[in-house]
Amino acid sequence: MASKTGFDYAPQAAHSEKVVAPGDYKFATAFLDHGHIYGQVNGLLEAGAELACVYDPDPEKVAKFLESHPDTPVADSFEAVLTDPEIKLVAAAAIPNRRADIGIQVMDAGKDYFTDKCPFTTMAQLEAVKAKVTETGRRYMVYFSERLHVESAVKATELVQGGAIGDVVQVINLAPHRLSKDSRPDWFWDKEQYGGIITDIGSHQCDQLLALTGSTDAKIKCARVANFSNPDHPEFEDFGEVSYTMSSGASGYYRLDWFTPDASPVWGDGRTFVVGTKGTLEIRKYWDPAQPGDPRDRIYLVNEDGTQLIECADKVGFPFFGAMILDLINGTEKAMTQAHIFKSAEISLRAQEMADAAG
Amino acid sequence: MASKTGFDYAPQAAHSEKVVAPGDYKFATAFLDHGHIYGQVNGLLEAGAELACVYDPDPEKVAKFLESHPDTPVADSFEAVLTDPEIKLVAAAAIPNRRADIGIQVMDAGKDYFTDKCPFTTMAQLEAVKAKVTETGRRYMVYFSERLHVESAVKATELVQGGAIGDVVQVINLAPHRLSKDSRPDWFWDKEQYGGIITDIGSHQCDQLLALTGSTDAKIKCARVANFSNPDHPEFEDFGEVSYTMSSGASGYYRLDWFTPDASPVWGDGRTFVVGTKGTLEIRKYWDPAQPGDPRDRIYLVNEDGTQLIECADKVGFPFFGAMILDLINGTEKAMTQAHIFKSAEISLRAQEMADAAG
Repeated sequence: MASKTGFDYAPQAAHSEKVVAPGDYKFATAFLDHGHIYGQVNGLLEAGAELACVYDPDPEKVAKFLESHPDTPVADSFEAVLTDPEIKLVAAAAIPNRRADIGIQVMDAGKDYFTDKCPFTTMAQLEAVKAKVTETGRRYMVYFSERLHVESAVKATELVQGGAIGDVVQVINLAPHRLSKDSRPDWFWDKEQYGGIITDIGSHQCDQLLALTGSTDAKIKCARVANFSNPDHPEFEDFGEVSYTMSSGASGYYRLDWFTPDASPVWGDGRTFVVGTKGTLEIRKYWDPAQPGDPRDRIYLVNEDGTQLIECADKVGFPFFGAMILDLINGTEKAMTQAHIFKSAEISLRAQEMADAAG
Repeated sequence: MASKTGFDYAPQAAHSEKVVAPGDYKFATAFLDHGHIYGQVNGLLEAGAELACVYDPDPEKVAKFLESHPDTPVADSFEAVLTDPEIKLVAAAAIPNRRADIGIQVMDAGKDYFTDKCPFTTMAQLEAVKAKVTETGRRYMVYFSERLHVESAVKATELVQGGAIGDVVQVINLAPHRLSKDSRPDWFWDKEQYGGIITDIGSHQCDQLLALTGSTDAKIKCARVANFSNPDHPEFEDFGEVSYTMSSGASGYYRLDWFTPDASPVWGDGRTFVVGTKGTLEIRKYWDPAQPGDPRDRIYLVNEDGTQLIECADKVGFPFFGAMILDLINGTEKAMTQAHIFKSAEISLRAQEMADAAG
């Protein structure tokens, strides 16, 4: 269910399966800069992981976290988290340009890392983390919430990978966001810290394009960023778009923007269109505008069998979290490969570079 | 109303206004190669024009036309059409690479021309027609049916131009088509004759991007064509896409394809998304999938006033045709400027060239 806790970024599953016994898999949460951390923690808890402690240098962020997760032990320092041998995983949502450095510390301490997207803001961070993963054998996992924590996106991935629309010809992803200008921290407006709109939000879309087209790489055809409506924040980008040719041969396109109208009941009318050789599919993720009851998580599938509206809300769950925990325990890559994560980041970073160069 | 006559391309208005008295404005129809001609003729008749005669070198095409327009005088030759001083306008839907040459003959005969899109298949044709328009003072009008003959598109243009969503940031147009492979004539598969998917269908989209963004030109960022699923017709393109930066500063993107599933109740689930600084708008032109009654011509508008579903079917009409006739009589450019027509064609032709070069 969306927003049960009152936090925008904390989906909760109507049904979930615990993959580990109580106390068998402990994690910490740290660096609560982005609200996504609430979704990351929910997903891990629902899969059976135990939250060992919370850490943030800012006591206010810790206090806010404790409102929804009372009785969580509070760590005095990040060092205390890193040196606790019981903690296997650190879930964090730091300011974007700090994420890689924190992840390197986590892996150096022999733990796995689960960061909010975007995982990196520069290619140098990506390269450093790649080297550290090789060196330590630990994992650098990423919360690509727009696919992993959206039931219609989970179901659509299954349908497409199962051949419901034949071979994929193109994926289009439209990702509007609400700006909520007054509530944003300073780092949100500073390009060095957030990385640019394609680096930041686009890493989500790259994950989806790779997964839905079954690709391992992509060629960037063109990319653009712009600031149409926020001259008071000159480093902010309120619009971004990229066009790719995926390694599968399919095309991929996405648009990112911060223009969700204030009157919208949801933060973004996220859509995904997948065209295949034998059918087409549309995901209406967070809203189906002007439909009775403001439904969410719907798939419209048109193929040789006819037209179907597939309701996914509270029916699909979020299998990623349990699968990731089992991967980390067993050394497998069933939930998501490390290569997929690095490639999703790389093709968003390179697209940002191309857009920046185009001016 | 769609398909009242049984022809896919012949919308009829529920309400229309005649701008000329009976017999005051006569036109001929000729070269009936594309079914769009039925829509062109309907629009002109509804606006009060009188159909003086029909001509096609193929008696079967004439016979088929007479089924829906009985008692139309049949011209023996195109020369007979061209030399009839009563005929002010020739409406035609020839094979695409023949359209410019026919138009030049029409203008040389002192008449205006109303061709199906695409207006040209080469830049050389465009240049020749530009010169002929200047020389003769006659007009080369184009049936951009996806905007002019779709009530929701007419209404959306009004809303956007009236400021309903603020300044336009981006327009995305998704234009799937049903292939109906067995029913297509030979020229449909021959690139020299149809011009390529971007030249052909894309000219529609360019008209819409220019109109909805209020632009007079566009820079092409990237373009792609592909043949994913029709290796038996190697010159056919079943996929095309272009990304533009419009002269207004807005972005424009479209996807064209021939992958409408056979089970779809409509030939294409055409969509247009317009993002503005103060709202967003979606057009569901021909269908609203899985909605009761298979409605069409709907606009979903979200702006500062909230969310509205605007039903346009049988409520808006097609004012273009009457306005065009008055333009041609009075020498005005209220319906559409000649410069807009030439630019729509030019930016689709140039995008096709870029896609062809990209291979």
